Amino acid sequence: MGSVEEANDKKMEILEAIEDNYGGVTIDMMKEEEPMDSLKFHTMLRTSISHWRTTGKKGVWIKLPIELAHLVEAAVKEGFWYHHAEPKYLMLVYWIPHEIPHTLPSNASHRVGIGALVLDHHGQVLVVKENSGKNTGNWKLPTGVVEEGEDICTAAVREVQEETGIETEFVELLAFRQSHKSFFGKSDLFFICMLKPLNFTIHKQDAEIEEAKWMAIEEYASQVKVNQSELSKIIANICVAKKEKEYSGFSALLTTTGLSAKKCYLYSTINI
Amino acid sequence: MGSVEEANDKKMEILEAIEDNYGGVTIDMMKEEEPMDSLKFHTMLRTSISHWRTTGKKGVWIKLPIELAHLVEAAVKEGFWYHHAEPKYLMLVYWIPHEIPHTLPSNASHRVGIGALVLDHHGQVLVVKENSGKNTGNWKLPTGVVEEGEDICTAAVREVQEETGIETEFVELLAFRQSHKSFFGKSDLFFICMLKPLNFTIHKQDAEIEEAKWMAIEEYASQVKVNQSELSKIIANICVAKKEKEYSGFSALLTTTGLSAKKCYLYSTINI
Repeated sequence: MGSVEEANDKKMEILEAIEDNYGGVTIDMMKEEEPMDSLKFHTMLRTSISHWRTTGKKGVWIKLPIELAHLVEAAVKEGFWYHHAEPKYLMLVYWIPHEIPHTLPSNASHRVGIGALVLDHHGQVLVVKENSGKNTGNWKLPTGVVEEGEDICTAAVREVQEETGIETEFVELLAFRQSHKSFFGKSDLFFICMLKPLNFTIHKQDAEIEEAKWMAIEEYASQVKVNQSELSKIIANICVAKKEKEYSGFSALLTTTGLSAKKCYLYSTINI
Repeated sequence: MGSVEEANDKKMEILEAIEDNYGGVTIDMMKEEEPMDSLKFHTMLRTSISHWRTTGKKGVWIKLPIELAHLVEAAVKEGFWYHHAEPKYLMLVYWIPHEIPHTLPSNASHRVGIGALVLDHHGQVLVVKENSGKNTGNWKLPTGVVEEGEDICTAAVREVQEETGIETEFVELLAFRQSHKSFFGKSDLFFICMLKPLNFTIHKQDAEIEEAKWMAIEEYASQVKVNQSELSKIIANICVAKKEKEYSGFSALLTTTGLSAKKCYLYSTINI
């Protein structure tokens, strides 16, 4: 067998991978009409790791589309562990130089939520009543989860629109709290945003909202449920102070970062 | 066959699951000495879903330890998708009532980082130089990733100690930025914390830090690299304003939430 053929043979045995700037490689397994069988994958993976070990590679990533779920077991047998998963793929990772601790990036650790204080000129606040969950029967501020890739200030405006039909403008971020082990062992950041209403007629749209209305901020703050938790009591006090113009939080400044001038929001007390 | 035996037989075919308050069930597959084979698991899973369908269940969760990676394929074949993964387990989920959109909780979406402004009485700031990555050669504030279950204010103190040996006390949160698609398509929240140094002699400890020193805050702010990005320029200006006592951010208040009085930090402009 000639050297070119040998080289081709060798190449066949190594999984295709993209190198990164941290001494790592990523195998992006594609969903194909005829998916690779697990035995072939296992053999190629083992050969590939030996190869990358000799070339000084450190982290090895495998991105497996859900259609290739039958290949998970082989990767785990080779010492890979789970890094993260999204609905359509699983990311596995392996660290070649066992003698040194790994410096692989960590997984996402927080879910981000918002609560919206929408105040009109008469000191009335927009409140909602949910039809399920632990808050049934209680008038509360509209809340929601910040979607993937969404800005906090945008999420607050969207949630208020979805729950009440009221259009708003972001004014400022009043406060936020961080809590832990809130779901699947993960942490939670909850941002209270102050919004200015642009219209006042409520059109309830969200199926999870039973009722929405305008209510005097003092009445909202005096509810038994609000006063049962120290945190919600403080937040209600901030809302009342805001109505009295005796409180100011963080403004949102749209700026850019890095040489690529990627857009991002900076929240601070800089006056803009 | 008698009715009791029939009931027992039926019970045998259903996977053990814990009900939640949202009409869902969670199958927590245990790592066992003799793990279930995938065919048996597949049959039981199918029977279980039929059963839960008749009892009106909605979400079905499977928590699979990595040792049972051979069962992933069967769950996917039954229509399950990935919800999230941690190093030692994969969480899969399925929504029984196809006719209505699912209301399953979303996965963690953000990684959280901190940057620390440690200022002494002479207007000197604690800076570090990293020995790899894109910031090599640039004097920067100590930064780091907030660990799972860690408070932002605690993470800032820990990172400064690890990188420089300087013990500090959290003073306030100056500002934060949110950016998107920063790693694996996930978002990133970065909090700038002001800390008060409790000692001044540097003992570099972290292998990723090449050098650490005290530097006049104006010198830090005038670096070319700092001024190449609009965001880092604004942050440097906030740091200088802080030295001049012309800026104030969010304080951290340790409070409690809910009826269980779980501890959590609220960050706001309330004076404490």
